[in-house]
Amino acid sequence: MDKMTREDVTAMILSAKRQAGLTWEGIAASIGMSPVWTHSAAMGMNAMPAEKAQATITALGLPQEAALVLQESPTKIWQQAVPTDPCIYRLYEIVGVYGPTIKALIHEKFGDGIMSAIDFDMSVTRVEHPKGDRVKVEMSGKYLAYNAW
Amino acid sequence: MDKMTREDVTAMILSAKRQAGLTWEGIAASIGMSPVWTHSAAMGMNAMPAEKAQATITALGLPQEAALVLQESPTKIWQQAVPTDPCIYRLYEIVGVYGPTIKALIHEKFGDGIMSAIDFDMSVTRVEHPKGDRVKVEMSGKYLAYNAW
Amino acid sequence: MDKMTREDVTAMILSAKRQAGLTWEGIAASIGMSPVWTHSAAMGMNAMPAEKAQATITALGLPQEAALVLQESPTKIWQQAVPTDPCIYRLYEIVGVYGPTIKALIHEKFGDGIMSAIDFDMSVTRVEHPKGDRVKVEMSGKYLAYNAW
Amino acid sequence: MDKMTREDVTAMILSAKRQAGLTWEGIAASIGMSPVWTHSAAMGMNAMPAEKAQATITALGLPQEAALVLQESPTKIWQQAVPTDPCIYRLYEIVGVYGPTIKALIHEKFGDGIMSAIDFDMSVTRVEHPKGDRVKVEMSGKYLAYNAW
Amino acid sequence: MDKMTREDVTAMILSAKRQAGLTWEGIAASIGMSPVWTHSAAMGMNAMPAEKAQATITALGLPQEAALVLQESPTKIWQQAVPTDPCIYRLYEIVGVYGPTIKALIHEKFGDGIMSAIDFDMSVTRVEHPKGDRVKVEMSGKYLAYNAW
Amino acid sequence: MDKMTREDVTAMILSAKRQAGLTWEGIAASIGMSPVWTHSAAMGMNAMPAEKAQATITALGLPQEAALVLQESPTKIWQQAVPTDPCIYRLYEIVGVYGPTIKALIHEKFGDGIMSAIDFDMSVTRVEHPKGDRVKVEMSGKYLAYNAW
Amino acid sequence: MDKMTREDVTAMILSAKRQAGLTWEGIAASIGMSPVWTHSAAMGMNAMPAEKAQATITALGLPQEAALVLQESPTKIWQQAVPTDPCIYRLYEIVGVYGPTIKALIHEKFGDGIMSAIDFDMSVTRVEHPKGDRVKVEMSGKYLAYNAW
Amino acid sequence: MDKMTREDVTAMILSAKRQAGLTWEGIAASIGMSPVWTHSAAMGMNAMPAEKAQATITALGLPQEAALVLQESPTKIWQQAVPTDPCIYRLYEIVGVYGPTIKALIHEKFGDGIMSAIDFDMSVTRVEHPKGDRVKVEMSGKYLAYNAW
Amino acid sequence: MDKMTREDVTAMILSAKRQAGLTWEGIAASIGMSPVWTHSAAMGMNAMPAEKAQATITALGLPQEAALVLQESPTKIWQQAVPTDPCIYRLYEIVGVYGPTIKALIHEKFGDGIMSAIDFDMSVTRVEHPKGDRVKVEMSGKYLAYNAW
Amino acid sequence: MDKMTREDVTAMILSAKRQAGLTWEGIAASIGMSPVWTHSAAMGMNAMPAEKAQATITALGLPQEAALVLQESPTKIWQQAVPTDPCIYRLYEIVGVYGPTIKALIHEKFGDGIMSAIDFDMSVTRVEHPKGDRVKVEMSGKYLAYNAW
Repeated sequence: MDKMTREDVTAMILSAKRQAGLTWEGIAASIGMSPVWTHSAAMGMNAMPAEKAQATITALGLPQEAALVLQESPTKIWQQAVPTDPCIYRLYEIVGVYGPTIKALIHEKFGDGIMSAIDFDMSVTRVEHPKGDRVKVEMSGKYLAYNAW
Repeated sequence: MDKMTREDVTAMILSAKRQAGLTWEGIAASIGMSPVWTHSAAMGMNAMPAEKAQATITALGLPQEAALVLQESPTKIWQQAVPTDPCIYRLYEIVGVYGPTIKALIHEKFGDGIMSAIDFDMSVTRVEHPKGDRVKVEMSGKYLAYNAW
Repeated sequence: MDKMTREDVTAMILSAKRQAGLTWEGIAASIGMSPVWTHSAAMGMNAMPAEKAQATITALGLPQEAALVLQESPTKIWQQAVPTDPCIYRLYEIVGVYGPTIKALIHEKFGDGIMSAIDFDMSVTRVEHPKGDRVKVEMSGKYLAYNAW
Repeated sequence: MDKMTREDVTAMILSAKRQAGLTWEGIAASIGMSPVWTHSAAMGMNAMPAEKAQATITALGLPQEAALVLQESPTKIWQQAVPTDPCIYRLYEIVGVYGPTIKALIHEKFGDGIMSAIDFDMSVTRVEHPKGDRVKVEMSGKYLAYNAW
Repeated sequence: MDKMTREDVTAMILSAKRQAGLTWEGIAASIGMSPVWTHSAAMGMNAMPAEKAQATITALGLPQEAALVLQESPTKIWQQAVPTDPCIYRLYEIVGVYGPTIKALIHEKFGDGIMSAIDFDMSVTRVEHPKGDRVKVEMSGKYLAYNAW
Repeated sequence: MDKMTREDVTAMILSAKRQAGLTWEGIAASIGMSPVWTHSAAMGMNAMPAEKAQATITALGLPQEAALVLQESPTKIWQQAVPTDPCIYRLYEIVGVYGPTIKALIHEKFGDGIMSAIDFDMSVTRVEHPKGDRVKVEMSGKYLAYNAW
Repeated sequence: MDKMTREDVTAMILSAKRQAGLTWEGIAASIGMSPVWTHSAAMGMNAMPAEKAQATITALGLPQEAALVLQESPTKIWQQAVPTDPCIYRLYEIVGVYGPTIKALIHEKFGDGIMSAIDFDMSVTRVEHPKGDRVKVEMSGKYLAYNAW
Repeated sequence: MDKMTREDVTAMILSAKRQAGLTWEGIAASIGMSPVWTHSAAMGMNAMPAEKAQATITALGLPQEAALVLQESPTKIWQQAVPTDPCIYRLYEIVGVYGPTIKALIHEKFGDGIMSAIDFDMSVTRVEHPKGDRVKVEMSGKYLAYNAW
Repeated sequence: MDKMTREDVTAMILSAKRQAGLTWEGIAASIGMSPVWTHSAAMGMNAMPAEKAQATITALGLPQEAALVLQESPTKIWQQAVPTDPCIYRLYEIVGVYGPTIKALIHEKFGDGIMSAIDFDMSVTRVEHPKGDRVKVEMSGKYLAYNAW
Repeated sequence: MDKMTREDVTAMILSAKRQAGLTWEGIAASIGMSPVWTHSAAMGMNAMPAEKAQATITALGLPQEAALVLQESPTKIWQQAVPTDPCIYRLYEIVGVYGPTIKALIHEKFGDGIMSAIDFDMSVTRVEHPKGDRVKVEMSGKYLAYNAW
């Protein structure tokens, strides 16, 4: 049982998803969570609460021990400091171009602090548009004020 | 006239803003644009159309030639591949943790393509919350499908 | 079936191509696409529409499941930020030497925007020349104007 | 005279161009060279033959000694191994995604060798298109075969 | 007034401190804050509330406008991803050697989350010891649990 | 026997810990050491004295030869100069923001020297707090004065 | 047959060479090429013409299919941007110290252009010397003039 | 006198050379040294013996104190680990492609050791060739055997 | 026989050493060489003369073919430009802090040249000291003067 | 007074040394310290005790305030992770090649710990040798044992 790794579980999820013809939206609905969080936890970038881990293995027909692995706190690693995939690079570019702007506006609206990336949620939606549909990404993070002591 | 650089104009804007006690929201309102775009263009990360450049120098009391500089297409440069400022780093971290998730959901909702970072807009707002107010960042970019030829 | 990876399919394609003595031009002709796009999609840098994936496996005698893999949106990764192979490095060098020039001319001809690398196509041809034949690379990308909002 | 640097000449060119309301196409036409080469040489990425250097200072009203500087072989330096400006980055991305493809097709069409980046020319043109005009970049470089000895 | 930069204020503080023979402990006591926070804010790594900025300029005899600069949210930048100064490198080494251990124990004691570096405080004290006095560094940060949504 | 590697022993420890439902605190108590040191040594970032190595294999039911491996001086390697896991990155960020401050205060309290990262100990504790419990990290290292000769 | 990789062929060559007690000079003589080119092509840094590939497998007793692999255009990759092996590093150091000098002399002797690394050959010889024998490295590359268009 | 820096002397040399219309070959001849060494020492990559420093300032009409600076042992620094100038990059590429080959042949001809880059000399010459003249670079370095003790 | 790699021999040496309870000092004594050189050659950072390779396999009971591998000139590679292991990092730090000092003193005592790292030997010894024993590292390298030609 | 920076003092020392024709050995003798430490402290890599700072300014004829600067704890920074100057690079190379060997021998002779780079001293001497004089570098650092707690 304890030989099952994160990588094994990720591979089992991708395989079961493909074989069953599922979508991330569908898996998310079946475990009662959002698609962003569901994909992220399935890929090992978030830990699942016990009941969600159980629901996931039920939805995908995975072995019971996978539920344990899905509950562990993963070590979040990305290999490329600057991502090469164009779809992900554009997000990196947005941080490079607009990061100082977001910082200035947070300071203007809240004071000296940041948007949390931990107490955080996000959604990705498709918005119809006559000149071509648009991707909408909404992020919400708790404002955290710097401590002075 | 032509000796005025981007850096000069940025410094004049920051100085005039501080002296007049203005905010980015206020400057944005006075030129009829969004705060995100206004800050970004004022800091040299976007080019202004002629009328917006004119409105900006009027609102801030800048010399006329600054309007020309604000209309030029800037070369967008950021020095740190991985930003160190905590407020900006958290955005970088979000790209590292959730970038593959956003990619997977774009492919699921649209097909093989990306969210444009050029035909793009963004807002930053403050959302009240009983457990602590939250920063909301909304991004909208045109979906661009990969060409097959 | 679902154990077949991109790497497996790439290896099968290279192997079948060599065994059958095919060329990229020939494979491209048999699936009705350009050689640049065909090689790129075969090597996992582009996703194939279903019919092209089917044509590819027919042309090369690959197992049916390879067609599914060829349709998936790949994560485009290159390992070397600065390529070492001389043939590819020269292209990198051209971007270093002439990149600012291409940028300046795009701004002069179109305004503040870029050439898309997504809505994009390219060809590579041989041009006879008395002092030695020349490689001609033609790129065409949609002009994308920066948004102001 | 000999105190005039490349950087001085580049600044004088940009200043004279702005003051006179010239374009790169216009300057190129007045010296009888292509816009790509003209911009590149003016920005210190190529050396000018004596007559072209003379024509350039005449067209822009520069001091005589600038012609000497424009004839020197510059040391071509770019600071960013991975460019951040979106317009230039897209070109870098094209090399990352399609570099191995261009290499494969050159080998298929010519043999073991490369496209020269020295015996090389390039053009940038605007192509009208009903779905949005396109940027066309054409590169032509002499094929160089690897030596075997 | 607005010409005064962060760097100017930092230099004035260091100069006034040296001239008056002050210590960071003494300056901290005079403004009623901790030495760690006081040094950090004085060096531009934290923003000061208005009254603390006022107390700082009074304690050090700085010009009034320095108080405004001390209240601004600084962009926190460090140049060396891996610090070379031995005193600072040892702290970096501790993160390299014990970082995964701190992570494991936080997860064991709290669950899936992190120690905040924003809602955070720290002290540095000298502890007498018969085999040689010891440096004690105490860090305290709010536990932040990852969101699941 | 001598084929057993560090990696093998680490895997055996993690496996035995999970199967037996142990915690790092519990294992540490059973060998009479602190949790920080115990985790660190178990993960190959510290060498164990013979009796502690023996106690560890007894507590976890490991084969005898694992005790030898646990006593060897490991080569301490971390792959990421800048860690990506958010829990560990926050510690890195603290070094970036507060490193110069810790250095200044050590020099003020002790003289020209450093805090040892070798003659060093650390604890991680949970501190209850009405606004949310806090992580407390306490580090203690011997002060080492620079030699002058 | 097509399962044989470059790495397989390289290993077979090294093994056959050691078993037969051959030298690179000897192998080179047997295929009628220079030792530099022969080693380079054998190690996968150059492609062999068909007859030389055939002669190589004959000389070393390799399987027939190895001849096909030796004819393919390799992707030339080196892992270390700055080589660590002292013998290779010295060559890198020579480029760092004398690179600008070679550039200046090429421009003085030829004009604005470079020495080709493609239409290129090299030899390594031993030169007797009373104070210690010397290594002589001779490089010859075609002068390529920059194009102006 | 002692305010004169290496950078000052380098600038004076370049200026005097240009004003007098000299060449590196000419300067080298006038001081009785090779062009490679002369350029290298003039640019601060080698130290000059006293008489050569004197001859240099005489040949170029430099102030006397420049002779002292030219005799100092310079700290040899190059900013780009991978050079971008095409003429210098090609030399870097040759080290990447042929470095292991040179190493193998040195070991075959001499034993376990290296070619010195210190007890070293080099020449650059133009060789006429019907298909285009060639650059010839000849390097000679003392063989240094590894010590065994 | 020729399938035995450097890595195999290194592993055999470490295994035999552990099984036989040997020390590097002991192995070095048995082959009549210094401990530094012996460890270095055994770990693949130096080549052994034939008789020392023979003595090594006799002392450790290795198969005969290992002697051949130990005689080959290794390619010396280290993976970390900046080492992370604290014991090795301290040596790197010494080079960073005292490197320019060693350089200045070599120039003062010898002239323009360097200490060879090839014609080089080193020892590591334990020196008793009332305040704690000390590690003594002694390096000796031949002075190499820069050539002027 | 307080405007005098480390850089100013370093420049004054180098200037005074050159003007007075002093050597590092001579300056060291006049302040009663070793040449290595004297050069290092004079160049801002070590802090001087008050009396040595006073002796230094007396020996070199520097203004009084320079003594204060020489007593401050410097932030030790080196710009090049891998040094390019050949004399310093060789030391870096020695760490790369022999670092693991020194580590192994320290562990064999002392146990699990390191050689301190803080409680540390070093000398550089010239040793006559019939085959060419040698540079001798002797380092001595206190052994520091890892703590277990």
